[in-house]
Amino acid sequence: MTDKKNISVCFTPDQFEKYGNGTSTVVIVDLLRATSVISTAFACGIEAIIPVQTLEQALAYKDKEGYILAAERNTEPVDGFEYGNSPYHYINADIKEKTLVLTTTNGTQAIHLAKKHKVITASFVNIDAVAKYLIEESNDIIILCSGWKNLFNLEDPIFAGALSNLLLNSGNFKSNCDALLAAQQLYANAKDDIFLFLNNSSYRKRNNSEQVIKDTKFCLNPTIKSNIVPIFDDGKLIRA
Amino acid sequence: MTDKKNISVCFTPDQFEKYGNGTSTVVIVDLLRATSVISTAFACGIEAIIPVQTLEQALAYKDKEGYILAAERNTEPVDGFEYGNSPYHYINADIKEKTLVLTTTNGTQAIHLAKKHKVITASFVNIDAVAKYLIEESNDIIILCSGWKNLFNLEDPIFAGALSNLLLNSGNFKSNCDALLAAQQLYANAKDDIFLFLNNSSYRKRNNSEQVIKDTKFCLNPTIKSNIVPIFDDGKLIRA
Repeated sequence: MTDKKNISVCFTPDQFEKYGNGTSTVVIVDLLRATSVISTAFACGIEAIIPVQTLEQALAYKDKEGYILAAERNTEPVDGFEYGNSPYHYINADIKEKTLVLTTTNGTQAIHLAKKHKVITASFVNIDAVAKYLIEESNDIIILCSGWKNLFNLEDPIFAGALSNLLLNSGNFKSNCDALLAAQQLYANAKDDIFLFLNNSSYRKRNNSEQVIKDTKFCLNPTIKSNIVPIFDDGKLIRA
Repeated sequence: MTDKKNISVCFTPDQFEKYGNGTSTVVIVDLLRATSVISTAFACGIEAIIPVQTLEQALAYKDKEGYILAAERNTEPVDGFEYGNSPYHYINADIKEKTLVLTTTNGTQAIHLAKKHKVITASFVNIDAVAKYLIEESNDIIILCSGWKNLFNLEDPIFAGALSNLLLNSGNFKSNCDALLAAQQLYANAKDDIFLFLNNSSYRKRNNSEQVIKDTKFCLNPTIKSNIVPIFDDGKLIRA
């Protein structure tokens, strides 16, 4: 019998240094919307995604053959970028074999924060593939919630709870993390109608536009599923 | 009609700088066990409590007339200290009109972190008195969970949820804080049997001694209630 692997949940990027040890796999969650967009873009044929931290870094790729650019700041699209942080921008779009350069308020920052570790990204679009991948590999796991500007958000822990359940139910994992227990409780309370559960959340209050509501419903209950696990390798997210 | 006052919940001390603004009242919660001990000691007649950060600072008061010394580190009592972090050390003890010098792993540190604000301490021993006090004053409120070595713990948010409910139900408060929403969910799930709810928590696993179990049951469901609100003033907790 092999030892069980450990799972932890970290609620905000600024707490990550207490969890990271270099040998764990880090699962980045920015459910609304960056990691849902990433999963969706891969499902729709993108070749690779370069997550960058600043608008300037993204604009360096403008008009380069084979690259498309996307940016979001404070829930809004950014002038000068053709694509944004909506999964619908990538569905039925001409993105096959292209590389997406993406910068968002929280999610792409979290990827860079953890990049000394093995880093993958997760959302409800690819949750089953991520769980299967993590069950098959031998690393301990840290589920890193991107939060909102380093504050706790309600949506990422819900996803962390759902993913933790899949992993713990496999029998291959153990945990001694109160944040994981809280995430499981939040998922249990939310799962019947996550959109309704998030009704009073900061995210829902921050931007209540028709587009964001449509995106939110997709991210919580996606109509597209993907078996692709995006992994960060040499500055790019590629298929694991 | 006056504007509603704002409530936030902060899950760990290292996040506090994002919440503090100098004008809010900060409610320190270290349910297991520091702020429960503080409430209990006041209920049992202590005159004042000096929370200090190091064992050395506490020992400076040793053998001084009118002072008693208590310390806890990593859930354990500390050699050379007559009192510890158990509420039972203060019940029926000879502490009337004395000053307690107290240092604990998390709670007394959190008090010092927030001391540029108006700081009070809360537990289930004095929750009703604290709620009444906060409803009557005009400040915004930050409920600061002490956590465990700056990691999220499960027990302090449960209390934060209970206190938030009392405040929000008064109609005098508003909130836009996802951590508060999560705390309310955790309290709702826990309230029928908080001891059972905490069964897999880090706290319960850390020290499962008979004394700590007895203390934990007291802190979660205290047999003593107090109408005293300890407030931090000039280096001491005194009656508000």
